[in-house]
Amino acid sequence: MGLILALDFGGTKLTAGVVDAAVYHAHDLIWQAHKRVYSPADGDAQVDLATMAALGRELLAGERATAVGVSFGGPADYHTGVVRLSHHVSGWEDVPLQQRLAELFTAPVRIDNDANTAALGEWRFGAGQGLADLLYITVSTGVGGGWILGGRPYRGHNGMAGEIGHTAVDPNGPVCLCGKRGCVERFASGPYMSADLAEALELSGNEITGQDVAEMAAWGEEAALLILQRGAWALGVGIGNAANLMNPQRVILGGGVTKSGPDWWERVRQTARETVLPQAQFDIVPAALGDDAPLWGAVALMENM
Amino acid sequence: MGLILALDFGGTKLTAGVVDAAVYHAHDLIWQAHKRVYSPADGDAQVDLATMAALGRELLAGERATAVGVSFGGPADYHTGVVRLSHHVSGWEDVPLQQRLAELFTAPVRIDNDANTAALGEWRFGAGQGLADLLYITVSTGVGGGWILGGRPYRGHNGMAGEIGHTAVDPNGPVCLCGKRGCVERFASGPYMSADLAEALELSGNEITGQDVAEMAAWGEEAALLILQRGAWALGVGIGNAANLMNPQRVILGGGVTKSGPDWWERVRQTARETVLPQAQFDIVPAALGDDAPLWGAVALMENM
Repeated sequence: MGLILALDFGGTKLTAGVVDAAVYHAHDLIWQAHKRVYSPADGDAQVDLATMAALGRELLAGERATAVGVSFGGPADYHTGVVRLSHHVSGWEDVPLQQRLAELFTAPVRIDNDANTAALGEWRFGAGQGLADLLYITVSTGVGGGWILGGRPYRGHNGMAGEIGHTAVDPNGPVCLCGKRGCVERFASGPYMSADLAEALELSGNEITGQDVAEMAAWGEEAALLILQRGAWALGVGIGNAANLMNPQRVILGGGVTKSGPDWWERVRQTARETVLPQAQFDIVPAALGDDAPLWGAVALMENM
Repeated sequence: MGLILALDFGGTKLTAGVVDAAVYHAHDLIWQAHKRVYSPADGDAQVDLATMAALGRELLAGERATAVGVSFGGPADYHTGVVRLSHHVSGWEDVPLQQRLAELFTAPVRIDNDANTAALGEWRFGAGQGLADLLYITVSTGVGGGWILGGRPYRGHNGMAGEIGHTAVDPNGPVCLCGKRGCVERFASGPYMSADLAEALELSGNEITGQDVAEMAAWGEEAALLILQRGAWALGVGIGNAANLMNPQRVILGGGVTKSGPDWWERVRQTARETVLPQAQFDIVPAALGDDAPLWGAVALMENM
């Protein structure tokens, strides 16, 4: 018991929260303190670490954290406590973040990547409460996932489980940054849909955002509609394939692209239903905790310490 | 300790084995008794049950089984002990097989489907010993799989996990019996490859077996080569997708189609390697226990009773 400090590092922003372990519970989520700061554009891992320390101390306001949980937006290994790299910020290669923060806060620390912490947060406090087997998927800048299986987080042999964004659904699809054709992420992520729409409309890529794609589709703009529906189809196949393999009870979707409207949701659900065998049905629901899912997951990492 | 009776029901054949729990171990697998019988073509579930009882009693030779493990070739629910149906034999709908056998042998009984028992057998006694996370796939009349995750069998929310054969890898592929286009099984199973080759050669489907496809491909017959390589490609994509999702240490392949030669294996491995993210690499190895994998898995089901 005591205070749990939770940190959610997203590359361009850092969110911190403090909860009193004796006070919050699943039906009444209360932050004792909560604050978000944005990283300087020219920052690096040293700057980010200093920001984590300062923000944590500010929110603790002189009290001691009994535990520190961290959600990291990039490849981070729960078992070793080491960050492999950040896709957004330099200097994060092989940083022993767990150890550094344990020294800074003189408290036990656990770290995990943001897809896993969001899965954990939704399972413990959000749309997946009480379920044994679920898949959480964020559909945003990238498409990534986290598993709860048999009532506990499942991370894979070396922490790489959940990469649904790079499952391949169409051998004739466009080439993804990973080198393969027809990845779910290549069809369904915000930046790829924006780039595809910009190309279709012969605009430069930076003029269109992921939100624009959804808005233009809602107005009935043909190219936007096709691209958004194709993204929903690819995600639906990916989810159906995952359900054939793992037979979860529920799939929870979070991230900006999930705000693309009811037609997008219907296409995802219908495609998933058609892809999975009838005996393995499940439901697909929106995330309940929104942007705070990884931060609540970071709290959940440190429960029962 | 004592005698474990293992039964492997495959639809057209029933195999039984008895082991002395004090004698066999992972490096020296010894059946005290072992026998296979074939089912009459016009049999039904009642006949099969009577055969199980008779064969079990014959092998036990008057001694008592302390536990009975059953591998069932079809949808069978480990948790409820009920067989949903057999694809080959009538009368198996909703048969409480666990309960029936417990009454017949007055011993604890567990049942599971053959993909799960084969996974368990290979994990406990075969090519997956000591690994925490593995996928076993049988590539035979159908394509099915079983998971060991976190050092224990994983069956999914209602026992449907492992259906890698019905993951979709090509939206423009041929239609599978399940209704979808481009399932792994539609490309990679023995019967579908035979049917595809028969069609390409304008022969009737029954004239060509799965083994013929591999043999004709080995002679350099063009259509056979293409069909076999396409099956290996689809399986490789399915495995790569599964590895992106679950990050296992090892994938073990069993079943008749895996005897299709080194080119088939190389194509499966290469495609899987290209499909999975580089950080989630794993190996793909042949099953070690051959046809007895499900039977040894049935033994493993009953260890530590």
